[in-house]
Amino acid sequence: MTEPLRITGTFLDEVTADIAGHNWGVKEWTQEFDTYVEAGIDTVILIRSGWGPRLSHPSKVISAQVKTIPVYMDMPELFLSLADERNIKFYFGLYDSGVYWNRNDWKGEVEVNRDYIPEVWHRYGSHKSFAGWYLPHETYDSGQRIIELNTSLAKLCRQTQDLPILSSPYWLGRYDMSLGYSLPAPSPRSLKEIVTQWDEIFKAYSGLIDVAAFQDGTVYELELPETLSAMRELTDKYGLSLWSNVETFDRDMPIKFPPIEWRKLVHKLTSAEGIVDKAITFEFSHFLSPHSMWPSARHLFDRYQEYLHGEHRALDQ
Amino acid sequence: MTEPLRITGTFLDEVTADIAGHNWGVKEWTQEFDTYVEAGIDTVILIRSGWGPRLSHPSKVISAQVKTIPVYMDMPELFLSLADERNIKFYFGLYDSGVYWNRNDWKGEVEVNRDYIPEVWHRYGSHKSFAGWYLPHETYDSGQRIIELNTSLAKLCRQTQDLPILSSPYWLGRYDMSLGYSLPAPSPRSLKEIVTQWDEIFKAYSGLIDVAAFQDGTVYELELPETLSAMRELTDKYGLSLWSNVETFDRDMPIKFPPIEWRKLVHKLTSAEGIVDKAITFEFSHFLSPHSMWPSARHLFDRYQEYLHGEHRALDQ
Amino acid sequence: MTEPLRITGTFLDEVTADIAGHNWGVKEWTQEFDTYVEAGIDTVILIRSGWGPRLSHPSKVISAQVKTIPVYMDMPELFLSLADERNIKFYFGLYDSGVYWNRNDWKGEVEVNRDYIPEVWHRYGSHKSFAGWYLPHETYDSGQRIIELNTSLAKLCRQTQDLPILSSPYWLGRYDMSLGYSLPAPSPRSLKEIVTQWDEIFKAYSGLIDVAAFQDGTVYELELPETLSAMRELTDKYGLSLWSNVETFDRDMPIKFPPIEWRKLVHKLTSAEGIVDKAITFEFSHFLSPHSMWPSARHLFDRYQEYLHGEHRALDQ
Repeated sequence: MTEPLRITGTFLDEVTADIAGHNWGVKEWTQEFDTYVEAGIDTVILIRSGWGPRLSHPSKVISAQVKTIPVYMDMPELFLSLADERNIKFYFGLYDSGVYWNRNDWKGEVEVNRDYIPEVWHRYGSHKSFAGWYLPHETYDSGQRIIELNTSLAKLCRQTQDLPILSSPYWLGRYDMSLGYSLPAPSPRSLKEIVTQWDEIFKAYSGLIDVAAFQDGTVYELELPETLSAMRELTDKYGLSLWSNVETFDRDMPIKFPPIEWRKLVHKLTSAEGIVDKAITFEFSHFLSPHSMWPSARHLFDRYQEYLHGEHRALDQ
Repeated sequence: MTEPLRITGTFLDEVTADIAGHNWGVKEWTQEFDTYVEAGIDTVILIRSGWGPRLSHPSKVISAQVKTIPVYMDMPELFLSLADERNIKFYFGLYDSGVYWNRNDWKGEVEVNRDYIPEVWHRYGSHKSFAGWYLPHETYDSGQRIIELNTSLAKLCRQTQDLPILSSPYWLGRYDMSLGYSLPAPSPRSLKEIVTQWDEIFKAYSGLIDVAAFQDGTVYELELPETLSAMRELTDKYGLSLWSNVETFDRDMPIKFPPIEWRKLVHKLTSAEGIVDKAITFEFSHFLSPHSMWPSARHLFDRYQEYLHGEHRALDQ
Repeated sequence: MTEPLRITGTFLDEVTADIAGHNWGVKEWTQEFDTYVEAGIDTVILIRSGWGPRLSHPSKVISAQVKTIPVYMDMPELFLSLADERNIKFYFGLYDSGVYWNRNDWKGEVEVNRDYIPEVWHRYGSHKSFAGWYLPHETYDSGQRIIELNTSLAKLCRQTQDLPILSSPYWLGRYDMSLGYSLPAPSPRSLKEIVTQWDEIFKAYSGLIDVAAFQDGTVYELELPETLSAMRELTDKYGLSLWSNVETFDRDMPIKFPPIEWRKLVHKLTSAEGIVDKAITFEFSHFLSPHSMWPSARHLFDRYQEYLHGEHRALDQ
């Protein structure tokens, strides 16, 4: 029997965009990091270190360029310290202005990060858990000048400190309820279109960006195995590592967003088994943690544990 | 004093469409069925046994016709066993393709269920709790060829095993927030239109479909008593049983869907008192259960118990 | 060091419009009022005593004018009694027909309340906690004949019993997700427009309406200090008291509405420090209470307590 695919990484979504915060303090985050260890999580990724006027830590560089709201807690310091003590790897998500990029000004988005990346390394580089960079500008095709933006940001990271660089793109392979509030939505992409786009993107990423962890809820469930296999061919071709971002939230409910139904999670994990190098999730604390504000997350964790122990394999007809 | 109307049946919404799942396992469902007994629930209705690619159990018949996702748990087997041990009646909801019907192909929808119904009976018919069939294709008027679809499915059920057949239609007697995401919505129906439609539908159902359990949240609350009374005349005329599907979720909140406010529940129960033969709910586990993920469901259960004990009757002016 | 601004008042949102109810009974409300005392809440405001067909208590006056649903609990009686015993001040929110006003018939809205206000005082005036009136028709500019409506209602209140009169208007200084379902939304107002509108409104309110507690989530966070300062000038000019309605729900999440992120709350409290006479919130029980249905509200309460004890002040760059 194949070993079940285990989720060993999670995003930290504490500069939130569309997920309501837990309002956890130091005590709750410490407890959560202990749970990470128990659950086999060895990697955490700060999804972004700032978004528009909100910063996760005081930054002279950003505040000189963008009007910002005061910072009341040094979030990376807390997370890096918790990770240090537990041998967890920490990926640092860059700043997303929510301004330049949205106005199709990819150069402005690079500029706002140019001096910020060295500032970050100066501030946090001594933490032994600081293991890599994360590019927070999510990609689904080669439009919006995303190739230029992400390769430029990756070069800046490498110039500051040569560490692994992670991205977590999406496929737009289906239409889902979660897109509803930003209509008109672009049309879903066919697998053929997806392959064409990513052949171009990975070619540009090659040697510069190390990992693509695709958001697995962005194709129809039945098409997930073949989509992942096609991506595997491309990441092999261009020398990237393929991870799966196994989403633990449900994209198909009117409530945006509850924990996913456990059967969908099992199906997605099973679909990625043997294809991907590693499975991470967006994200453990809201949607899979026994400490989540959603009781259904706590039960999802139980079902996930049963799956790890060999239960919930596909039944014969 | 009239005996308060008690909810004695509930849907099981575990092949979910728009309600986020609890992610319960065997232990939690066993506890829930024990609570059903304590709360006076003698009837459970599996709302559908499959929806598009999702099945509640492995089915050679469906998987030969529609591409399906693997099944990780035999849901009807679990529910029927729990019902067997507790003398609870179980109604089996048919398969909803979400394909044929949506394309106005009622014959395709019948075909996909034709060999499925005998397969179901072969698989689960030995359970003593298997008490009836449920038609999952919800109706609000005589359009969409729903009369042909539902009478054809009912005939197939009767041919396989002659058991009571339940439906739970709606009135579309008001516009509510829950329709917001499928605009353009059809206009709300007046009571006169509702009576005209159901006179035609019940005439066709007569002798074939046993029960109509109307979704009580689909007319304005103030119009519920007269609407139920009008339906009672029609079900008497055509020999059906009239139940009320006393919805325990709230249709008028931006969150889709939280437990209903207790005053609305009391009003709807009081409105149906003395008119209907039985009250069921959509559905106990999310919206009325002490085990629900919503704390407000647990409090709704408390208020409902107080109502059963004679509290919360209308105050004099 | 300045004393941190403390929230000393809360709305009671129990005739709900868009916030799902807790389904609390007498026991839970008693516990909650005890928590109010511990948390330093000295003021509660019933947001409205009726809305369309729903009343918080039996009312001959309203039921003679509008078709109403039976009342199952005397809500003001419960809240006033709980407030009496705890030396909490209670503001009584008037009736909102949801009919006349919505049809731009401000005179009809006044008429439906004309005999109701004396009925209320006759019914509840002996409670020692009955400290003032609240005008539930929310205002953002001088349109919709809101000046005529609110000054007319205020005069009726004063004629019945001369007590402080509270309003809680909004600025419409930004576009937020919470407006999404009532599009087309009016454009956000600039500070200049806001000042022009409120100079006219406060001139009319002067000597008649005592308090304006602006909804602090209705301008962009970065503009809150200057907006509050501008309002302070106007309330000083016209002799009103300026309070802040420090919203504890989050307007920027797809879920409508979760508890706010604690950093936003701290920022808004800090922004109002030294400018406003008092801080109240919409509202404690759902979004800040340790008894809330949202676990993130309980954690928000913890973070808020830490803030009151001097933590979470802005970090230096």
